[in-house]
Amino acid sequence: MTDDASAYVHGYSTSEAARLADQADTLAELLHHDTCYSAGARVLEAGCGVGAQTVHLLARSPQARFTCVDCEPSSLLAARAAVAVLPAASAVDFVRADLFHLPFAAASFDHAFVCFVLEHVARPEAVLRSLMRVVRPGGSLTVIEGDHGSTFFHPDSAQARHTIACLVEAQARSGGDANIGRRLFPLLTEVGLRDVHVSPRFVYADRSRPRWVDGFTRKTFVAMVEGAHEASLRLGLSDEAAWAEGIAALKRAALDDGTFCYTFFKATARVG
Amino acid sequence: MTDDASAYVHGYSTSEAARLADQADTLAELLHHDTCYSAGARVLEAGCGVGAQTVHLLARSPQARFTCVDCEPSSLLAARAAVAVLPAASAVDFVRADLFHLPFAAASFDHAFVCFVLEHVARPEAVLRSLMRVVRPGGSLTVIEGDHGSTFFHPDSAQARHTIACLVEAQARSGGDANIGRRLFPLLTEVGLRDVHVSPRFVYADRSRPRWVDGFTRKTFVAMVEGAHEASLRLGLSDEAAWAEGIAALKRAALDDGTFCYTFFKATARVG
Repeated sequence: MTDDASAYVHGYSTSEAARLADQADTLAELLHHDTCYSAGARVLEAGCGVGAQTVHLLARSPQARFTCVDCEPSSLLAARAAVAVLPAASAVDFVRADLFHLPFAAASFDHAFVCFVLEHVARPEAVLRSLMRVVRPGGSLTVIEGDHGSTFFHPDSAQARHTIACLVEAQARSGGDANIGRRLFPLLTEVGLRDVHVSPRFVYADRSRPRWVDGFTRKTFVAMVEGAHEASLRLGLSDEAAWAEGIAALKRAALDDGTFCYTFFKATARVG
Repeated sequence: MTDDASAYVHGYSTSEAARLADQADTLAELLHHDTCYSAGARVLEAGCGVGAQTVHLLARSPQARFTCVDCEPSSLLAARAAVAVLPAASAVDFVRADLFHLPFAAASFDHAFVCFVLEHVARPEAVLRSLMRVVRPGGSLTVIEGDHGSTFFHPDSAQARHTIACLVEAQARSGGDANIGRRLFPLLTEVGLRDVHVSPRFVYADRSRPRWVDGFTRKTFVAMVEGAHEASLRLGLSDEAAWAEGIAALKRAALDDGTFCYTFFKATARVG
């Protein structure tokens, strides 16, 4: 998915795959409810990873024809397994490829879809141009990304913010941008996409929304930050004490009197 | 509106009144579209200021009966003038009073409404309890507040964030909390309100949404931060050079390749 796959900040472990599946279930409605491809449409999912988004795409576009690409064989294997149990499994092809050098002829697809991919690459413009080449003129591009800098919570805590800053910095050192959501509009506009429309998707969790507190605050966001523990220490961004204090403070936002806020950005645009 | 009215961070100048009216027009639909009181309902607007929200409340509930309270005579005068030109003007009473000691009998109102008020008071719980006394059991309370800590933008800038931090700190030194939005849920729950529901209202501005870029980013948010210039220097929170650099960086987010994000919080709850 990146120039150097070994640098993917979240890693490729089994527990990471479980986290991504949890995240996708909780967020699917918020992020994907308005993505429906028509019967027969040829859709490229670029950077499908373990298929966490693929299953939701299929559910909403059961008659479209998907080609799902990733550079990591173990992820593709997991994605194939996730999709195999679905009725629409035969409508999906999996292809191992580098997003920067897609092995498809120009205008091979009607639509392209990328989710949680551009945040991890050093040259998101190059990925976008690569996608624009293989989508026919008039076809669409859909991009969904998070923005870790959009995070705020109660009780506020400098220690908790420190752990998030470590994740952002670790991702930056791998060439990514964990705060990419806020810049989707200029990014898509500048590569020449048309009719760029950005739709923020705000996540809010408090005690009256237990599904979000558990599914998002705890199992998605805190779990994701915890995943940067080893890298943060290795890179000298934090130490054990500061890290433990920060994670505890972050978990505090998932208690009964806490609240948690995060913003995803979904952009759509037209090619050509 | 506060224990010490002279400490109100935004001041009471004419240009400040114009800014508040601009802000209310741009935001009215986002913040107020779902607040409609029925014919004959007795509604208390607590801390009406110059009437910037009052005119929008009236437009959506033309048959309700409003009592608008503020502690500042010049604001009440402006509010009265703003409402006087409206058809529903006769349905509004203006009363000068301290929100902590409302001159009304218990259960005098069916509903209470507060907007951009709790962020300025040192004891928001006391204001809420004061409102709970004068609303009948089963009546509703609606609270709308911002959260300056929710702000993020592209291009990001530490200098720009510095000016926002100055406003937050100046407001804190006056006893307020400019980041109160995120804690409305625990605040309303802890004073004993029931069925507390918090609805975030996300503002997003990019070039494709010029009304928001001009009406919100420039004329509301940047104008509000600029209003904290004098206080920030007086309190020693900034200096002229850092301030100018920060404001310029903030304005950068309103240019063609910039984006701007802010979150308001609207809470509703039931009394008794």
